[in-house]
Amino acid sequence: MSKKIQIFDTTLRDGEQVPGCQLKTEEKVIIARELEQLGVDVIEAGFPISSPGDFLSVVEISKAVSEPIVCGLTRSKKEDIDVAAEALHHAKRGRIHTGIGSSDVHIKHKFRSTREQILEQGVWATKYAKAKGYEVEFYAEDAGRADLVFLAQLVEAVIGAGADVVNIPDTTGYCLPHLYGKRIQYLVENVKNIHRAVISVHCHNDLGLATANTIAGLINGAGQAEVTINGIGERAGNTSLEEVAMILQTHKDLDLYTNIKSQKIYALSQLVSSMMRMPVQANKAVVGKNAFAHSSGIHQDGFLKHAENYEIMNPADVGVPSSSIVLTARSGRAALKHRLELLGYHVAGEDLNTVYESFLVVADEKKEVNDGDLIMIVSSMPVLAKLP
Amino acid sequence: MSKKIQIFDTTLRDGEQVPGCQLKTEEKVIIARELEQLGVDVIEAGFPISSPGDFLSVVEISKAVSEPIVCGLTRSKKEDIDVAAEALHHAKRGRIHTGIGSSDVHIKHKFRSTREQILEQGVWATKYAKAKGYEVEFYAEDAGRADLVFLAQLVEAVIGAGADVVNIPDTTGYCLPHLYGKRIQYLVENVKNIHRAVISVHCHNDLGLATANTIAGLINGAGQAEVTINGIGERAGNTSLEEVAMILQTHKDLDLYTNIKSQKIYALSQLVSSMMRMPVQANKAVVGKNAFAHSSGIHQDGFLKHAENYEIMNPADVGVPSSSIVLTARSGRAALKHRLELLGYHVAGEDLNTVYESFLVVADEKKEVNDGDLIMIVSSMPVLAKLP
Repeated sequence: MSKKIQIFDTTLRDGEQVPGCQLKTEEKVIIARELEQLGVDVIEAGFPISSPGDFLSVVEISKAVSEPIVCGLTRSKKEDIDVAAEALHHAKRGRIHTGIGSSDVHIKHKFRSTREQILEQGVWATKYAKAKGYEVEFYAEDAGRADLVFLAQLVEAVIGAGADVVNIPDTTGYCLPHLYGKRIQYLVENVKNIHRAVISVHCHNDLGLATANTIAGLINGAGQAEVTINGIGERAGNTSLEEVAMILQTHKDLDLYTNIKSQKIYALSQLVSSMMRMPVQANKAVVGKNAFAHSSGIHQDGFLKHAENYEIMNPADVGVPSSSIVLTARSGRAALKHRLELLGYHVAGEDLNTVYESFLVVADEKKEVNDGDLIMIVSSMPVLAKLP
Repeated sequence: MSKKIQIFDTTLRDGEQVPGCQLKTEEKVIIARELEQLGVDVIEAGFPISSPGDFLSVVEISKAVSEPIVCGLTRSKKEDIDVAAEALHHAKRGRIHTGIGSSDVHIKHKFRSTREQILEQGVWATKYAKAKGYEVEFYAEDAGRADLVFLAQLVEAVIGAGADVVNIPDTTGYCLPHLYGKRIQYLVENVKNIHRAVISVHCHNDLGLATANTIAGLINGAGQAEVTINGIGERAGNTSLEEVAMILQTHKDLDLYTNIKSQKIYALSQLVSSMMRMPVQANKAVVGKNAFAHSSGIHQDGFLKHAENYEIMNPADVGVPSSSIVLTARSGRAALKHRLELLGYHVAGEDLNTVYESFLVVADEKKEVNDGDLIMIVSSMPVLAKLP
């Protein structure tokens, strides 16, 4: 009995918070549409009270997508929740993501509060958000370092107050996988009403363990993973969507699956990298330019004898184009049309001429035009923007 | 009772195999000297039979360093072992790293052999290498996918034949941390003579799990971790030295420690990145340029109230320079001297003038001169190269 894992993408919220990565609303909408095509279940579209730009982005993304839940972040404050509720007005399914610090270091030094007051405020915020008519996800900030007994009390209280999802973030990227997994297991075993909510895992990569912690959480009972494309995010970033998706796809024995259409990963990785001006290193797992390159003599020999010797994923599974297809300023309309079709865009006639003109402009600037560039070109054309 | 973990650095072998990363022997020697300063226990210096350049590099690194063991890679073949033994002649302590495939997919499709023949060849190679008078490390290639009972037989046989270290690589980056940890635990519990050898873990990052697998191996009894600076290596790379070192330093409760002088990590990361022309992405754990940057309003507020709210490591612990010190073409000798001293180079008088001239050339080319650049400048001066 395979279990579906919800993919909660926060590229446009936790990812976009990075210095130099800020996007315009139109750009966020392009990415949100691609995330919908990719098959994510939830798009965290912004932190509405934080700026007019974030507010507008949540509004426009709510209008632009229909399948994924659209989520807005808040603190446990009335004005935050009011503004988020307003921003989500057009969403087919909206979610308010509210919460508060749960570790003693956060309670004491950030909120200058007590466990009792924090619990009370969390319950209040959950009820207030729930009354707005949206789904509610509650985050227990810094749960990775929180006292486990208190964390269980807090989780039980907010589920009692109506939280549909409880997010157990490792905010500082501190946890070790086996211990983070045990935290989730403890909540599953000790929170009486835990079956009424989905447990979500939100990990940071400060020690290089975000993906492993996420997987440990899922194995131990979490049902939602919070991730970003290319693992972008503050400091060392968040859990990489592409790594989690490919681990679950490669390890069928875990009996967990997602709705991610993995063939769309590579193009979206390039799109996010270009738009956010955040290069992906060559040795990045799954989406780095060397991720599927076999170079040493021993490996090449083994690889040529039998691909499975050194390859656990097929590059085509994540949409890495065959090396023979490189689009440059010398490529013709046919090559462009073919590549667009592989990306799911069926463009012909006069539309193809329009796209081709823009393609040549980009191709003159860059040596090679990649899939991310193509999505940007097509998305910038009003007639085509709603495709595929 | 804290246990010392041996750090086996393979930046110059598995790391250097990457397309575009090839180094000249002089460059490898510079990195090897810095690795010695960093405190690594073993330097894998190359694969001597693979090319005259690799042979020469193993020879020169053997002469250049005195503390770390110098290691050369071989297949389980007479000529490989003969050549490696010759290359290691000048090493204070040399190690031959020999081995063979251990998974059925490798045995069948790469070696077109049988388990019995593989075991026999592994034992032969171990004995032959041992007879050369060096330490011997045996790798059971693709151990991550090998039949566990056969793997235990192979490990027992090569330890019986004299292997000092047995390397259990996850060659394809396939393993999940809890299962890789169980593999190591199984060997500890089922290989009778296991106490006569050190178990080594060598992981690849295809699914983003190399660091977590390495830690799982160490927790379950391995005593050596094979790593590279910045996690460079084929495909998605190897386990990152800096991540493993900082996890063990941050999680003292694991009761494992290394000899790594963590303050030297950042400069060496920059040096390797520049020399190998492999940019490190901004959100790379520990050494990315954003790894210690706090940008969002919530985080900045929390951080200013109390650094521990969002920081589990101090940037100074890994040698990240304070942001106020940026060396440019307008920096004077005093600023340069100060920065060199922080890196461990005490340069004065005429030597300082010489370094300053080279510094200005680099500063004219690049906007900012980083610590990696400074090490390259100093290392290229014959008189100073032996410092610090």
